[in-house]
Amino acid sequence: MPVYGTENVVVRCYETGPGGLARPATFADYFQEAASNNARALGFPGERLWAQGMAWVLARLALHIHRYPAAGETVCIRTWPAAHDRTIAQRCYEATDVHGQPLAWGTSAWVVMDISTRRMLPIPDFVAQGYPKDQPDCRPFATRAVPKLRETAHEALLRSRRADMDANGHVNNARYVDWVLEAMPQDFAAAHEPSMVDITFRAECGAGVPLVSFCSAPEEQVSLHSLRLASATAQEPRADHGSSVQPQPAGATPEKSAKPDSSPAEHAAGESANATELCRARVIWRARPAHHAPEHRA
Amino acid sequence: MPVYGTENVVVRCYETGPGGLARPATFADYFQEAASNNARALGFPGERLWAQGMAWVLARLALHIHRYPAAGETVCIRTWPAAHDRTIAQRCYEATDVHGQPLAWGTSAWVVMDISTRRMLPIPDFVAQGYPKDQPDCRPFATRAVPKLRETAHEALLRSRRADMDANGHVNNARYVDWVLEAMPQDFAAAHEPSMVDITFRAECGAGVPLVSFCSAPEEQVSLHSLRLASATAQEPRADHGSSVQPQPAGATPEKSAKPDSSPAEHAAGESANATELCRARVIWRARPAHHAPEHRA
Repeated sequence: MPVYGTENVVVRCYETGPGGLARPATFADYFQEAASNNARALGFPGERLWAQGMAWVLARLALHIHRYPAAGETVCIRTWPAAHDRTIAQRCYEATDVHGQPLAWGTSAWVVMDISTRRMLPIPDFVAQGYPKDQPDCRPFATRAVPKLRETAHEALLRSRRADMDANGHVNNARYVDWVLEAMPQDFAAAHEPSMVDITFRAECGAGVPLVSFCSAPEEQVSLHSLRLASATAQEPRADHGSSVQPQPAGATPEKSAKPDSSPAEHAAGESANATELCRARVIWRARPAHHAPEHRA
Repeated sequence: MPVYGTENVVVRCYETGPGGLARPATFADYFQEAASNNARALGFPGERLWAQGMAWVLARLALHIHRYPAAGETVCIRTWPAAHDRTIAQRCYEATDVHGQPLAWGTSAWVVMDISTRRMLPIPDFVAQGYPKDQPDCRPFATRAVPKLRETAHEALLRSRRADMDANGHVNNARYVDWVLEAMPQDFAAAHEPSMVDITFRAECGAGVPLVSFCSAPEEQVSLHSLRLASATAQEPRADHGSSVQPQPAGATPEKSAKPDSSPAEHAAGESANATELCRARVIWRARPAHHAPEHRA
């Protein structure tokens, strides 16, 4: 008998973007919330791992989105842990509207990390033993791995914030979903929406870090993405957050800053072939439906 | 008989930060959502103004926070429109936990803007006529106006994102609440939390804009804040979003960029006394309570 976690979530105004519709990252947020609650119900919540010096880490997430809901709509979510092997646990997601019509589905791969060494651990015994049996498989990832971006066509500068940090003091994975999409040219992004986002997570990120989001030209409506640190000196988290300046009237010329990120080429991530890659993604695009009436917006 | 809008909101994991607790901006989000729903119920929703070429614009918001709720907690919100004069409508907020204990309260001032000219309009007749009578007053703002920041002590670099945009294509006011707080030094921010944020909104912001958040040294636990465009050239929204780069292998040296924000001093907003100020704020701080156990986190 499969074990599902279910919850209904109302899309809040502030979770929607242009057109008044949810974003792909909105589903990543909802799915993570549902996963967290279901893991707690099954006896292997994050806090139990945390107490033993371990943490669940999302390694890969594929979102397939049929329709983006509007603010005020109810999203019905079902999640379940599927198979696991020695190191990787799969979790599946489905989202429908209140009429049972599909909104999205997802497949995720999780690993367990040692918090102090940041190294991957085998799935702990208490998780393996508590894992429900005979669960439905997740739908498979479309490719064995997310392909590496080799030909950069567009880029966008980003900077992580304290407000992006989760309870663990790192950027939550769902923010990376937002960030890889920032690189698409505005005219393309205005006319298209992702029908699929497949993202693989490679490095953590703290606050105040300059980043560059790179992407390919969308060939036949598919784009590849890479999110990287903007420079080697940017690897110091919070480098500029709350940095002191010489007391002076606001608006006057500041003293020369010695901050590590005051270098001239914040966006020159491409200068270093070794720039740390935080994540890479593959995105499938489709034409946006006709402009959504702003019936739900304030 | 006063007219209230009420709603219960469960704090979601991804709305919390360090310590697993909601942020000040979480209340700004919740209050805005409740305001939107209540305005709709009363017959003067944003979409009705929008249809006539107008929009509600938040001019000022003061949040007083007794306790920050954790993920999974229910927040009970009550909001009501209070008095209005010819151009300014006040709206009040209260939030309690499920036991009726206070979490936060707020006072906001709204104006109506002409969407095409971006100029302030008188409150439209249909709003004034639909406005409920004999409503309780909001608690007053603590100062006549939010004081101007004159002595800058700390700063943080920021960059707006597409993911920050709301349905109208501008950064939502609640994000400004996050952003003004980014400037506080990390050690101070880790040991303190805002008990009050009073913020006044002065200019809109699009995506991809480099910003600097400035603040004073917190004298007697009070700080003043200013959020500004990082440079005059940054006033072109989306300047770098999806900007094209010469096709090249990712990781190779990029061609020299002519983008307006590739100048050496992204953080040198202080260089221009005329840098556009997006908002200013006054914040009162108190010591953070003992570390919140991560009982709710995934």
